[in-house]
Amino acid sequence: MKPVINVGLLGFGTIGTGVVKLLQNNGNLIERRLGAKLQLKRIADLDITTDRGVQVDPALLTTDAAQVLDAPDIDLVIELIGGYEPARSFVLRAIGNGKHIVTANKALLALHGEEIFAAAAKNGVEVMFEAAVGGGIPIISSIKENLCANNFHNIFGILNGTCNYILTRMTNEGLDFAEVLKAAQDAGYAEADPTFDIEGVDTAHKLALLISLCFGTKVPFDQVYTEGISKVSSLDIQYARQFGFQIKLLAISKLTNGAIEARVHPTMIPEHYPLADVAGAFNAVRVTGDFVGPVMLYGLGAGMEATASAVVGDCIALARNINSGTSPRTPGMAYQPEAIETLPIKSMDEVVSQYYMRFTTVDQPGVLAKISGVLGAHQISIASMVQPESHDVGSVPIVIMTHVSQEKNVRAALAEVDQLDVVLEPTHLIRIENDLD
Amino acid sequence: MKPVINVGLLGFGTIGTGVVKLLQNNGNLIERRLGAKLQLKRIADLDITTDRGVQVDPALLTTDAAQVLDAPDIDLVIELIGGYEPARSFVLRAIGNGKHIVTANKALLALHGEEIFAAAAKNGVEVMFEAAVGGGIPIISSIKENLCANNFHNIFGILNGTCNYILTRMTNEGLDFAEVLKAAQDAGYAEADPTFDIEGVDTAHKLALLISLCFGTKVPFDQVYTEGISKVSSLDIQYARQFGFQIKLLAISKLTNGAIEARVHPTMIPEHYPLADVAGAFNAVRVTGDFVGPVMLYGLGAGMEATASAVVGDCIALARNINSGTSPRTPGMAYQPEAIETLPIKSMDEVVSQYYMRFTTVDQPGVLAKISGVLGAHQISIASMVQPESHDVGSVPIVIMTHVSQEKNVRAALAEVDQLDVVLEPTHLIRIENDLD
Repeated sequence: MKPVINVGLLGFGTIGTGVVKLLQNNGNLIERRLGAKLQLKRIADLDITTDRGVQVDPALLTTDAAQVLDAPDIDLVIELIGGYEPARSFVLRAIGNGKHIVTANKALLALHGEEIFAAAAKNGVEVMFEAAVGGGIPIISSIKENLCANNFHNIFGILNGTCNYILTRMTNEGLDFAEVLKAAQDAGYAEADPTFDIEGVDTAHKLALLISLCFGTKVPFDQVYTEGISKVSSLDIQYARQFGFQIKLLAISKLTNGAIEARVHPTMIPEHYPLADVAGAFNAVRVTGDFVGPVMLYGLGAGMEATASAVVGDCIALARNINSGTSPRTPGMAYQPEAIETLPIKSMDEVVSQYYMRFTTVDQPGVLAKISGVLGAHQISIASMVQPESHDVGSVPIVIMTHVSQEKNVRAALAEVDQLDVVLEPTHLIRIENDLD
Repeated sequence: MKPVINVGLLGFGTIGTGVVKLLQNNGNLIERRLGAKLQLKRIADLDITTDRGVQVDPALLTTDAAQVLDAPDIDLVIELIGGYEPARSFVLRAIGNGKHIVTANKALLALHGEEIFAAAAKNGVEVMFEAAVGGGIPIISSIKENLCANNFHNIFGILNGTCNYILTRMTNEGLDFAEVLKAAQDAGYAEADPTFDIEGVDTAHKLALLISLCFGTKVPFDQVYTEGISKVSSLDIQYARQFGFQIKLLAISKLTNGAIEARVHPTMIPEHYPLADVAGAFNAVRVTGDFVGPVMLYGLGAGMEATASAVVGDCIALARNINSGTSPRTPGMAYQPEAIETLPIKSMDEVVSQYYMRFTTVDQPGVLAKISGVLGAHQISIASMVQPESHDVGSVPIVIMTHVSQEKNVRAALAEVDQLDVVLEPTHLIRIENDLD
């Protein structure tokens, strides 16, 4: 029983600063719960001079990672450098030295997870990563621990605060994407180069991790269909509202007949769904288990303090493991390594969904007949249609909501529709999730 | 490392049946994740003849609890009998025999928890109880584990499916309480004697447990102010909607200046809050931590299968502890026993809140002046007022929403108002939560 668990921190950036603050502010509280002290022994970063706004004993600071990785007194290492290298090498070295790992680095795990978890198992240590998905939301530990008696059927996630902040403001204020993106950047909710977030890549990475945890399968994240929010217009948001929907960037995975769907794209969901109230910088993950039914976890998906909460939560779990045990307690990716499979991933062609389609056409009779003729020829059945007032001279919008259709047919139909002489621009297509249990 | 963890079940009722089903259906899945088998060895119940709809090897069944409690091969005991005795004696005996406990019995823990957790600590075993609050929702493990680096500021919960089902139907269908209660009973969502649920007692028990876990303090549940839903009328629900609110039976606890508020009562919350979309039989718990911010967990709060998920989740956690460790891993009530305090509980008089008040008065000029005069004299400031159309001859409703006021003043004011000759019946009072971070 160690009364003090020694922690080494790699990376004194935003989250690292949050971790230092949390360990300082809540040290006594943690001891009251854990029954031991989490002692920050060393902080390694290339920059140890810039003031992070926290008081730190200078003796803790070093530019030499070896003082964390090879120090015999350090029990667990927090990796908050990010990226692939040197993070990967550092993590493997710490593991080789018998140290447990806490990380937030989903990219590292996505690319090198197999190697890292194998090394951890071999060395009798654990790697935890609650902070990699959903900031402070305890979704990873819930999937790995209390929910793990369930076969999971599906996953729905709002996983990127930048996108959700933008869509929330577009929805609440009727603004256009470009305007809100700029405001988001000014307010610190979006990066100077926002591509990674707004094109859905960040969300796809997180979904790949959740899929592995829930379904026990490897998913290369480049096999996750990824479509961002840059083409969502305020017009689409308005029409969505008319139909009783909201638009979110949803991460979606379903397991049906042994095959996985894995997709990220703007999605219309009914306003009364709890998911629809996830606003601004908040995130949520909703999973359905065969016994537990639907479970949704909601909270701040990013930010210094929320993410630090998840990192230190993992440290406490590892401290408990160290103090009560001798070997890894829970497999890193939720499944025993030998039980991990490679389930086939459905192509987008095979996905079935309801669809919202917004056409921009000439202002003539017969246009709707032409369009619905093409849809019908591709087995796409129309649930509802509106032809709203047009604000542009010479063109009219037509909005169609379809019944459940196959993506392959939808794409073929729209390829044809977009060639019609009555159609003035490519059709806007947004998928609808309307059938959550 | 035990490849098989032996489980004994006390109580073959609804949840017990769900546990048996889950262990049967998902045994292989559990093994793929846990790396060991959870083996149900014995089921004890006074009735071992009634068909529960699951196939069970008759050799497992016994009417003799000793065959679970004293059997040397059994590692952990699931207590699903409910009530105080013999549950308490059985649990203590199992603990004395070195067996871990999984229970859903919040009443037992509320009354005998201290004794039980002390016995467990002394005997080097653990007692887990995820299923005691919120059915399948992993709220207890989240508070005890990944969120435990946080000082919690408050707890809000929708914790009773019966009440939430009734209020949801009243809200969606405009029906009266009595009518929906009957429908709930017919549909199996309410008991023949529904008092325990609809008067908020069940919710109060669950809140007491959550308060102990979050704030590290003992709370006798008879100190939780408890007011049920039987006086909520469809009129109040309509007015709430006019003001943009929904009515839920909320469990509320706040920690301010070292004192605890603990109350259960119908509460108006803004429609756009994620809590407001928690409908029907769903439950939710929302906690706020000083670093993680607000976190909400949502799911099915009751039911055979959802509750079984939580029970078996606990079994898996204990199996992991058995297989990787030698001593209790996490203290039963989240805090080290010696760190548990007794924080003062605020009386309701000291609570501050916004209030909805519905008066029924004579149809005369000057009534509003009289009422607002009394309110003003008690430092209650009016935020808004409507005097809707009256459907009853000779009486008019007046609805007032107040600014933040002190409960003591509100009660004194309404005692006075209800004595006015212009007031025809006691004022309907519903508290408002409008300030969630």
